[in-house]
Amino acid sequence: MKELEVVYRVTCDAVEIEARARALAVEQSVEMPPGAITDAHVLEQVVGEVADIAPAQGGSFRVTVRLSVDSTGLEAGQLLNMLFGNSSLQREIMLEDFDLPRAATADFGGPANGIAGLRRRLGVYHGAMTCSALKPLGSSPAALADLAVRLGAGGIDVIKDDHGLADQRFAPFAKRVRAVQSALRREGLRARYAPTLSGGAMAIASGLEVLRDEGVEMVLLAPMICGLGTMHELARGRPELAILAHPAMAGAARIAPPTLLGKLFRLCGADATIFPNHGGRFSYSADTCRALAGAARDRWHGLAASLPVPAGGMQPSRVAEMRAFYGDDVMLLIGGALLESPLGVEAAARDFVDAVRGAPQ
Amino acid sequence: MKELEVVYRVTCDAVEIEARARALAVEQSVEMPPGAITDAHVLEQVVGEVADIAPAQGGSFRVTVRLSVDSTGLEAGQLLNMLFGNSSLQREIMLEDFDLPRAATADFGGPANGIAGLRRRLGVYHGAMTCSALKPLGSSPAALADLAVRLGAGGIDVIKDDHGLADQRFAPFAKRVRAVQSALRREGLRARYAPTLSGGAMAIASGLEVLRDEGVEMVLLAPMICGLGTMHELARGRPELAILAHPAMAGAARIAPPTLLGKLFRLCGADATIFPNHGGRFSYSADTCRALAGAARDRWHGLAASLPVPAGGMQPSRVAEMRAFYGDDVMLLIGGALLESPLGVEAAARDFVDAVRGAPQ
Repeated sequence: MKELEVVYRVTCDAVEIEARARALAVEQSVEMPPGAITDAHVLEQVVGEVADIAPAQGGSFRVTVRLSVDSTGLEAGQLLNMLFGNSSLQREIMLEDFDLPRAATADFGGPANGIAGLRRRLGVYHGAMTCSALKPLGSSPAALADLAVRLGAGGIDVIKDDHGLADQRFAPFAKRVRAVQSALRREGLRARYAPTLSGGAMAIASGLEVLRDEGVEMVLLAPMICGLGTMHELARGRPELAILAHPAMAGAARIAPPTLLGKLFRLCGADATIFPNHGGRFSYSADTCRALAGAARDRWHGLAASLPVPAGGMQPSRVAEMRAFYGDDVMLLIGGALLESPLGVEAAARDFVDAVRGAPQ
Repeated sequence: MKELEVVYRVTCDAVEIEARARALAVEQSVEMPPGAITDAHVLEQVVGEVADIAPAQGGSFRVTVRLSVDSTGLEAGQLLNMLFGNSSLQREIMLEDFDLPRAATADFGGPANGIAGLRRRLGVYHGAMTCSALKPLGSSPAALADLAVRLGAGGIDVIKDDHGLADQRFAPFAKRVRAVQSALRREGLRARYAPTLSGGAMAIASGLEVLRDEGVEMVLLAPMICGLGTMHELARGRPELAILAHPAMAGAARIAPPTLLGKLFRLCGADATIFPNHGGRFSYSADTCRALAGAARDRWHGLAASLPVPAGGMQPSRVAEMRAFYGDDVMLLIGGALLESPLGVEAAARDFVDAVRGAPQ
């Protein structure tokens, strides 16, 4: 059944758009001249179809294509491949949106924990949650563990690795995970640690062993680097590990951010999704951020909600405004600003947590 | 040692470029205010440095940043993260080029087989090589095996899966690999089959078992979907498997194609790299293709060469021109055009092979 509906923005001359749209539907399905296909089943069930062409901004067109759900094999990497694999090489094409039937979204499965599961795990049943990061890259495991204790003592809910922490000699993955996790445990802190899981398939398999041995309950990963399929497998196979998705390398700037970081990451199992908040170091607009948060947590085919985690150069002074903008189902992530506070990290963390937990301004 | 040199193209006002360049060096290294870093080792060895700012086309700037090689952990995904992870989210930044010291490139290792190893494996010691693809998505294993036999009987050197073939119900991975590989063996054909390896870390591990059981010697994978780190691990850990890299999802259009598909894929182990040839369905220019082929196969710190595989809507009528353009160390890939030939697939394949093997026009 051709029920994977994909919306592209195509920039080309009006006289070419029909042919261009047909070529796009072929490119993203059978990738060969349909006239040379002899199998009736393939022609009927698999070749992409143009469902709609509508004029859009700036002389571009909004083209809706229908693809076969079966062509995704219900695998996340292959879904991405069918949505945008080859077309990503064509500058005139942008991926704007997609949708699947409810049954197929259930097969993909979405977040194993979702916002409700994260709240239970963190013991934060109302209001916004807080997150900070272990930095800088280059620090020793002991230094990072010490920072984790100070952030945890300040009341932060989730302490994640900086996304640049991988498996470097400064603080090798296994040593770092052990140091941070045991320091939090020793101090009796409630904070959950989310280490960065990275590397190829084999490194990830051995990293998962470390996480299991250390009783780690959350993990940070960058699906556009380690593979969307790997995140999806974890969500299905290791639901005890809550997933915090990082947007590194997701900035093709040719996939609408709400579609990629909101919808697709949610579908493929992100319990929480980090993204650059408007007004920070990155260029997302307030509208983009609102749409992204909506795609992550609004009702969609019965999937659990992903927790929006706006970040990227945020300051404690923006907490009230961010709470008003995002509402309660959000986790605010402030990293560097806590580390440079003249109050010291623990007091700065406590102020941040109090601002988030306190009555809205 | 800060010896990972990265070149970015930055678009901003001239009065802002120095601050913008410094922020970029921080973003791609410690990702926190350097003033809050107390560890002298981190300040000296890890914080990125701006090495050069030069005016470039259209009022943009060419910014050279030096990062710590150690920050990559000598892991491919993390290298990509350090090169462009967060900056990929900033529209004003493009990744133009990078270089590493010779010792670090040797540690990454590059192609395990390279052009020379592929020639030995294929028994083609001189001149260009040939490749075609099993299509369309939706076909049964038997239909794909039959097509493989016809292409192999026509003399094609490498028969790859269409990049849309993954692990779908039409032709599940293990069944397809067995059907195609045993058909080629039964017919005594010399062609090597390169199936698509896809999915998350666990699916890839089990896919590798299938390839080992069936004696498959080549594999097709899309590093930007399954993870650059996974390709790199395979190149290091399974050198008996020659790697054909596919450019799906590599079209961020904000990484120079020669840098991504030529240099980075080579560094991380691609024995051959498929890319859209100029004049086909995609928009790469002849200059881009020449630079990409150069990055793949020219001398670079002693790494083995990657074989350029221009593709994307190529026609047999272009063989002479492509041979003249790329020279001998190339593999020409023609898929759809062989399948729609009125001659039939086997005869069309034979004509293609003869044109490639024959005297240059």
